[in-house]
Amino acid sequence: MAYTHLADYPADIRERAARVRLACFDVDGTLTDGRLWIDEQGRELKAFNILDGMGLRLLEKNGVRVVLMTARKSAVTEARGRELGIEEVHTAVKDKRSLLLSLCDKYNVQLEQVAMMGDDLVDLAALQVAGLAVAPANAHGWVKERVHWRTRAAGGEGAARELCDLILGSQGKAEAILAEFLR
Amino acid sequence: MAYTHLADYPADIRERAARVRLACFDVDGTLTDGRLWIDEQGRELKAFNILDGMGLRLLEKNGVRVVLMTARKSAVTEARGRELGIEEVHTAVKDKRSLLLSLCDKYNVQLEQVAMMGDDLVDLAALQVAGLAVAPANAHGWVKERVHWRTRAAGGEGAARELCDLILGSQGKAEAILAEFLR
Amino acid sequence: MAYTHLADYPADIRERAARVRLACFDVDGTLTDGRLWIDEQGRELKAFNILDGMGLRLLEKNGVRVVLMTARKSAVTEARGRELGIEEVHTAVKDKRSLLLSLCDKYNVQLEQVAMMGDDLVDLAALQVAGLAVAPANAHGWVKERVHWRTRAAGGEGAARELCDLILGSQGKAEAILAEFLR
Amino acid sequence: MAYTHLADYPADIRERAARVRLACFDVDGTLTDGRLWIDEQGRELKAFNILDGMGLRLLEKNGVRVVLMTARKSAVTEARGRELGIEEVHTAVKDKRSLLLSLCDKYNVQLEQVAMMGDDLVDLAALQVAGLAVAPANAHGWVKERVHWRTRAAGGEGAARELCDLILGSQGKAEAILAEFLR
Repeated sequence: MAYTHLADYPADIRERAARVRLACFDVDGTLTDGRLWIDEQGRELKAFNILDGMGLRLLEKNGVRVVLMTARKSAVTEARGRELGIEEVHTAVKDKRSLLLSLCDKYNVQLEQVAMMGDDLVDLAALQVAGLAVAPANAHGWVKERVHWRTRAAGGEGAARELCDLILGSQGKAEAILAEFLR
Repeated sequence: MAYTHLADYPADIRERAARVRLACFDVDGTLTDGRLWIDEQGRELKAFNILDGMGLRLLEKNGVRVVLMTARKSAVTEARGRELGIEEVHTAVKDKRSLLLSLCDKYNVQLEQVAMMGDDLVDLAALQVAGLAVAPANAHGWVKERVHWRTRAAGGEGAARELCDLILGSQGKAEAILAEFLR
Repeated sequence: MAYTHLADYPADIRERAARVRLACFDVDGTLTDGRLWIDEQGRELKAFNILDGMGLRLLEKNGVRVVLMTARKSAVTEARGRELGIEEVHTAVKDKRSLLLSLCDKYNVQLEQVAMMGDDLVDLAALQVAGLAVAPANAHGWVKERVHWRTRAAGGEGAARELCDLILGSQGKAEAILAEFLR
Repeated sequence: MAYTHLADYPADIRERAARVRLACFDVDGTLTDGRLWIDEQGRELKAFNILDGMGLRLLEKNGVRVVLMTARKSAVTEARGRELGIEEVHTAVKDKRSLLLSLCDKYNVQLEQVAMMGDDLVDLAALQVAGLAVAPANAHGWVKERVHWRTRAAGGEGAARELCDLILGSQGKAEAILAEFLR
């Protein structure tokens, strides 16, 4: 069951989320369920969730910069990033923590203003330095033990949207967003 | 567990369903599980459920006009609509409530005769004016709180069929339909 | 949890299964989970399960004729049937019961020697006349009420294999099959 | 829930895993969920999990040779194997046990140093001779009864990664691996 109201989230997590200006998302296993469909020519497909797409767009519209970062070279990820209008799409990333640190410089934000969401070992170094470290429900056990918060949904089933909602709610934006959609 | 008999549905929902002449369905997250498969060229696939297809056809054969409406520009949705023989397939819809109101005019039905099913914020305005507002089990929490009824199945797993069955049953058509298939 | 030993199945179902010479399977929702992946050109994909493929092959190798029958015109179903080496693949079937009856004639089997597995209303007429009528766990409620047996697995997740195992086990073939694979 | 700490695994299984030098994996149903997506031309896709890919790479980096073996002729499996840099990818395998035995010769390992993971009857003969025989949660009942260990995850959802983690942990490599990713 997804979180609905701000009071549903733990208080310390809301405090961390209230500070976020830069939200970084791993791709496979975080924005997807980790599955790679491969065809007979070795080309890949993967499955993103439209719930997450809406959340990422709401973050950017409300002053939180969104970053996609993946260790995998992937035309699919680049295509999805383009469609969502996300500028900071980084594929074939060798060192996610270094990338995260350089983005902090670029956007002039502190580490405590960074959220990082990831599911596997390659995300650990970046998760360790982020002000809000989040893992989807399907994350590897070693990752789950080392984050501040775990979403109820698995990657690809709306896990990223949970983080988006947490950030928007904790920053007091939820009411206005909802009002606009009801208008 | 899906509903099987008319008595399984709440009485007030059956009353609302008995009046429906126009049934509007969001697509991603409602007729699908919200997942978008993206290939290396950025082309998309999505997965509809044959259970829902049967339900939509039964509605149209029994005097209820079916509408598909999505905020997303999508050749996939248009292809699926064509295959099901649905005339009212609307993609890249900026304002679902306005579309719903104009369809009421076109078909000369009242708002209380309209069912609307959707799962995310972009559906809220239309859901608020429909005589029967329905969300699939996977809908966003803010949507689930603002509908008359939630299906047991998630989008893409037969959620739309549950609504079709509710409407057909509440309008006293279930026995005749079943009899025809048993003949 | 799938059935493993013959004693796990109800006795009356084993009796019905012991007589089967012709095993008919609906496709969408029975050999698949009912989902149709549609691409931007309107072409479809669907997902069969390799567990079922093994079961269907074991039936044919052990004297039970396998039939695939679907109301849907589908190049995908034909391709899957060819790959499994199944001769009796029927698509775009208007009347499954008539087809079933004509196959009884062709193969000189009685209705009590026919198993039929299906998940939706179009399967009902054929299910009503078969000696062993089976529905997968995901079947429509009206169908589930009108069959002799429901598999524990859903369509596309090994439901058909459960029926294959039931038939092979009830006909005393399981031990020999297992021995061959262990050899 | 996946295993996280070495103490979570049964002691006798850890002993078996500590000896493994050669880890053999069936493909469909073990590295995938057993589903074959078929398109209108009869071409197939299947879905691997990035969690498993990471595990297989960690095995090879830590001195355990990885083998993929499938009875199915499959360009998809070959493509996935190439991408992961696995040398020993065998498709269209008629006799998995013979292949396993010849690989023991080639790499000069004993049968008790071999792990084999598979889900269906064609894997049984190889599973019977391996020092560590493992089945994913979705395996056929007859297979589940004849292995040393069953993973909690199903094939395609990280089942193979569970085995990789077990082997690496039992061989005392987990701490060093984790430290490298945290660095």
